Amino acid sequence: MTVEPGRAVVVGIDFGTLSGRAVVVRVADGAELGTGVHEYSHAVVDRILPGTGQVLPPDWALQVPSDYVDVLRHAVPAALAAAAGAGVSAADVIGVGTDFTACTVLPVATDGTPLCELERFADRPHAYVKLWKHHAAQGQADRINELARVRGESWLPRYGGLISSEWEFAKALQVLEEDPEIYAATAQWVEAADWIVWQLTGRYTRNACTAGYKGIFQDGVYPSPEFLRALAPGFAGFVEDKLVPPDGRLGDRAGGLTEQAAAWTGLPAGIAVCVGNVDAHVTAPAGNAVAPGQMVAIMGTSTCHVMNGERLADVPGMCGVVDGGITAGLFGYEAGQSGVGDIFGHFVDTGVPAAYSERAVAEGRSVHEVLTELAAAQPVGAHGLVALDWQSGNRSVLVDHELSGVVLGQTLQTRPEDVYRALIEATAFGARTIIEAFEGAGVPVEELVIAGGLTKNALLMQIYADVTRRPLSVVDSAQAPALGSAIHAAVAAGAYPDVPAAAAVMGRIRRGVFLPVAANSAVYDRLFAEYTLLHDHFGRGGNAVMHRLKALRREVLGVTPGGSGVTGSGAPEADAVGSDAAAAGAPGPGTPGPAEAGAVPARPSAALQEALA
Amino acid sequence: MTVEPGRAVVVGIDFGTLSGRAVVVRVADGAELGTGVHEYSHAVVDRILPGTGQVLPPDWALQVPSDYVDVLRHAVPAALAAAAGAGVSAADVIGVGTDFTACTVLPVATDGTPLCELERFADRPHAYVKLWKHHAAQGQADRINELARVRGESWLPRYGGLISSEWEFAKALQVLEEDPEIYAATAQWVEAADWIVWQLTGRYTRNACTAGYKGIFQDGVYPSPEFLRALAPGFAGFVEDKLVPPDGRLGDRAGGLTEQAAAWTGLPAGIAVCVGNVDAHVTAPAGNAVAPGQMVAIMGTSTCHVMNGERLADVPGMCGVVDGGITAGLFGYEAGQSGVGDIFGHFVDTGVPAAYSERAVAEGRSVHEVLTELAAAQPVGAHGLVALDWQSGNRSVLVDHELSGVVLGQTLQTRPEDVYRALIEATAFGARTIIEAFEGAGVPVEELVIAGGLTKNALLMQIYADVTRRPLSVVDSAQAPALGSAIHAAVAAGAYPDVPAAAAVMGRIRRGVFLPVAANSAVYDRLFAEYTLLHDHFGRGGNAVMHRLKALRREVLGVTPGGSGVTGSGAPEADAVGSDAAAAGAPGPGTPGPAEAGAVPARPSAALQEALA
Repeated sequence: MTVEPGRAVVVGIDFGTLSGRAVVVRVADGAELGTGVHEYSHAVVDRILPGTGQVLPPDWALQVPSDYVDVLRHAVPAALAAAAGAGVSAADVIGVGTDFTACTVLPVATDGTPLCELERFADRPHAYVKLWKHHAAQGQADRINELARVRGESWLPRYGGLISSEWEFAKALQVLEEDPEIYAATAQWVEAADWIVWQLTGRYTRNACTAGYKGIFQDGVYPSPEFLRALAPGFAGFVEDKLVPPDGRLGDRAGGLTEQAAAWTGLPAGIAVCVGNVDAHVTAPAGNAVAPGQMVAIMGTSTCHVMNGERLADVPGMCGVVDGGITAGLFGYEAGQSGVGDIFGHFVDTGVPAAYSERAVAEGRSVHEVLTELAAAQPVGAHGLVALDWQSGNRSVLVDHELSGVVLGQTLQTRPEDVYRALIEATAFGARTIIEAFEGAGVPVEELVIAGGLTKNALLMQIYADVTRRPLSVVDSAQAPALGSAIHAAVAAGAYPDVPAAAAVMGRIRRGVFLPVAANSAVYDRLFAEYTLLHDHFGRGGNAVMHRLKALRREVLGVTPGGSGVTGSGAPEADAVGSDAAAAGAPGPGTPGPAEAGAVPARPSAALQEALA
Repeated sequence: MTVEPGRAVVVGIDFGTLSGRAVVVRVADGAELGTGVHEYSHAVVDRILPGTGQVLPPDWALQVPSDYVDVLRHAVPAALAAAAGAGVSAADVIGVGTDFTACTVLPVATDGTPLCELERFADRPHAYVKLWKHHAAQGQADRINELARVRGESWLPRYGGLISSEWEFAKALQVLEEDPEIYAATAQWVEAADWIVWQLTGRYTRNACTAGYKGIFQDGVYPSPEFLRALAPGFAGFVEDKLVPPDGRLGDRAGGLTEQAAAWTGLPAGIAVCVGNVDAHVTAPAGNAVAPGQMVAIMGTSTCHVMNGERLADVPGMCGVVDGGITAGLFGYEAGQSGVGDIFGHFVDTGVPAAYSERAVAEGRSVHEVLTELAAAQPVGAHGLVALDWQSGNRSVLVDHELSGVVLGQTLQTRPEDVYRALIEATAFGARTIIEAFEGAGVPVEELVIAGGLTKNALLMQIYADVTRRPLSVVDSAQAPALGSAIHAAVAAGAYPDVPAAAAVMGRIRRGVFLPVAANSAVYDRLFAEYTLLHDHFGRGGNAVMHRLKALRREVLGVTPGGSGVTGSGAPEADAVGSDAAAAGAPGPGTPGPAEAGAVPARPSAALQEALA
């Protein structure tokens, strides 16, 4: 089957937290020709296990794998149908690529069947997909970290000194300890990113990205059996029994589309299916920003920073560095800010009075827009505030989720828009702190490329340009992850020799969209100095009050760290990679971000509604 | 004229910020038999000078003295009429006492006529009464303080190291420098507290309280001519020309009621009129709390603490210590918290979402009540927050109005009621800091007596008991200052030998209304330790970020410190004595405080409405 070169298209499929999105992209120029979206019918399972009435403990977050297949069955045909108007037919499709939230992971039988689809395990929570934001394995993560520190494991610095409760090992250990029968029945512990490719190709290919960032695969090996045995005797064989080494480089062809998958999707059987990947990481090629020094910040409820580097360096407080973790042949660095859009969303939900929400309704726009307009009407430094952006903890560079937020400088004249602006600025200071950590470790950051829904907020973008003293480029697609997956599909199909070559043609970037204003930057240098003083005082041991307050909170509420007694104990780690930041999309023209659409801000709102009920 | 002892009554008149209140009180037992209220028709003049259309600069706050006379003409007859039902007639009244906001001060001609009542000065703002919260003399106050520090003036430590912009000298210096003709025409610079007694008696008696606390009269002298000359050459004769030494002890008879005042009030001519006094200070006798060691906290928009002591001590950060400043023969100590109810009011106005205000409306109660109920439903320490109560600066013990507020510990689960509770706790920690400063200086605080509208908030009161580890007594009158003035009237009329003796019979106190709960106190000790760490770090030079932020704010807005360019620059000093805290009264059953009724919270609301208009 040959497709005329000018007609060839690829399909990128982005699996988010609440829905999947397929986009049909022309190989020759990256034009997006048709889109289809399908919402997961079970969404996030965090209260009741479907069909059982079983109540889940707090901090759990599961998904149902058949929802992912439904995306193949509905979103892909819908995208094809939409592209028909541009003269595209299914026969023109030469490849498929996918990206997923991560670490989203599930136990499967030898043939890839999810254990939750076996009738005998359908009522067992641990048989289901553990979504990235399943935060009930904090106790296990704490033990992993403590043991790794004590043993001086060489892989620990590759993750900024902290393995997340969201990742593969902590979640697997929780299964072992809470439902040993499910653990025993698990033939493979599979990233959803790879499971979906398994469904498309009929075979299991483990991708280099999640194996590195979420599976602790470093320098060719996983953590040793000795380490695992010291964690729990029954865990010693976890790697040997239930993991495989990564055998798929990003952009490689994982296999050909099976007849069954062709039937689901309406795509030609046998076309190239690319190795699985992660939403944040595919966004770099979507912005043609895979050269060393191009830092891509995917800003949503949280922010994920990904950047290639030519050499391996220990950047203090990064999330991880993985050989080939973004594109094959380079070291992929990742850092993150635990809270960004969710901080703004929480503020809008809980800290803005009726006059503002009523005005927003009257004017037919969001409270974010009203606050943004008011916040923009003041000189830099006029509100007299400085804030710390740790309401969801601090991922990079302090790697400490026991930290919490601060707003300092309030007077009786302080207005909601002042606080809103101070919170935006705090996240910009957090981003600058990360950039300076990379540069200080000898990994230069030459360009800042922004993706995600927050790019629509001009005030926020200008503040980031002013604070970082860097021109901002913008990834010019409302569905950057799906575009990034499509680029990978084109490489897997052989249309381009490698991902950078494909990205150079198919990626979409607008350069210099926001330029720093020198006078603003001069004032922000002073405010950043204040931020840094507070950052180091509260974050580096000057005053560990935040740790003590969280410990006191757990004590008086009678819960243990990482236990399941209380909402908000051990602030959920809204890790940007898995937070669906890139996938959150554009909630509407001019809206500052996807915070409202995301799942995280829904939690305080729900709690608030509950309190008021 | 003799009144049968059992029938004798006195009238107390409390002049507040927005209204005056008269109460008829039985001498034999302090029973309140009738009340009358009159609202000032000009209220607070802070925008347009009446009858002129002249716009006042920011931070100005004037009043019109005829409004005070109208209180005599309307509130007193109304109170008498109300008392008629209890069988009281005007002939039973043996004395009148008054209290006023302070420092509220005006320029008068030799005969006591306010200069603003002279036709040629009617259009001159400086000819009017400067209300306590006139904050446009900050530049003058700064110079007074700087010079006093440099010269090592012995009186400066008596005021905790800082003379307020609200007080007599700063306000007079502003008149000299901005309208020398008015200054020259000023025969006397008179506290309104004394001016009203002048109207009642026909002669000027200067009371010991305001002369000491507001007029810098210490050890028998005012500041020296040399000091005044160094401030401004034309100011050298200020004391000599326009002030008199205090010649009226508190509780003394200033004179007999004139025929004219009798005609205004309907009271018998010739009855005793007591020396003038201040709202906060008369509240101590109202609660029968004038013994050394009984600290009375009058809690409203701000809090004023008054307490007698047997010896003179320098308490770091107090507002002032005055010989006979509360009752003759003892040293009267005063301290203050610049922001209390106004902090809660500002939070309710600017930081609470629609769901709460809608619920309050639906349930027919205040947002304060809704927040209080929700805040009460959590164990101590559960919200994970600690705050600094410096949104209006810090009067005691740091004496620094360049400080500002902090809230620390926010997560994405933090709810409005959590912040509300943390703000209440912060003010309680501020109160404990003051108590500890007194005790550390050898002035023991044995009992804590609370007055004012905030006593109606049971959660707040319990927090104060728990934080201070002291049983709380409550002044048992909704109009404590007027009762206190009535007690002074009884002494002036000779019914009791002195104020303590009268207070013992007529004062109203409920003891042990709130008792500390040991388990709560134990947790609060830990939270107070956190508060103190932050207090000392930000308040004592560890990190002067608040000063820098306020300086930066002024810089970018192009205003000078104490200048009149900007709302909120140099946080208004909401000094409790003058803040009408005691007079704010009870806004309704269960309402946590008079914050809503006060003038300070109205400002952010107005600004907010303006911003949204």
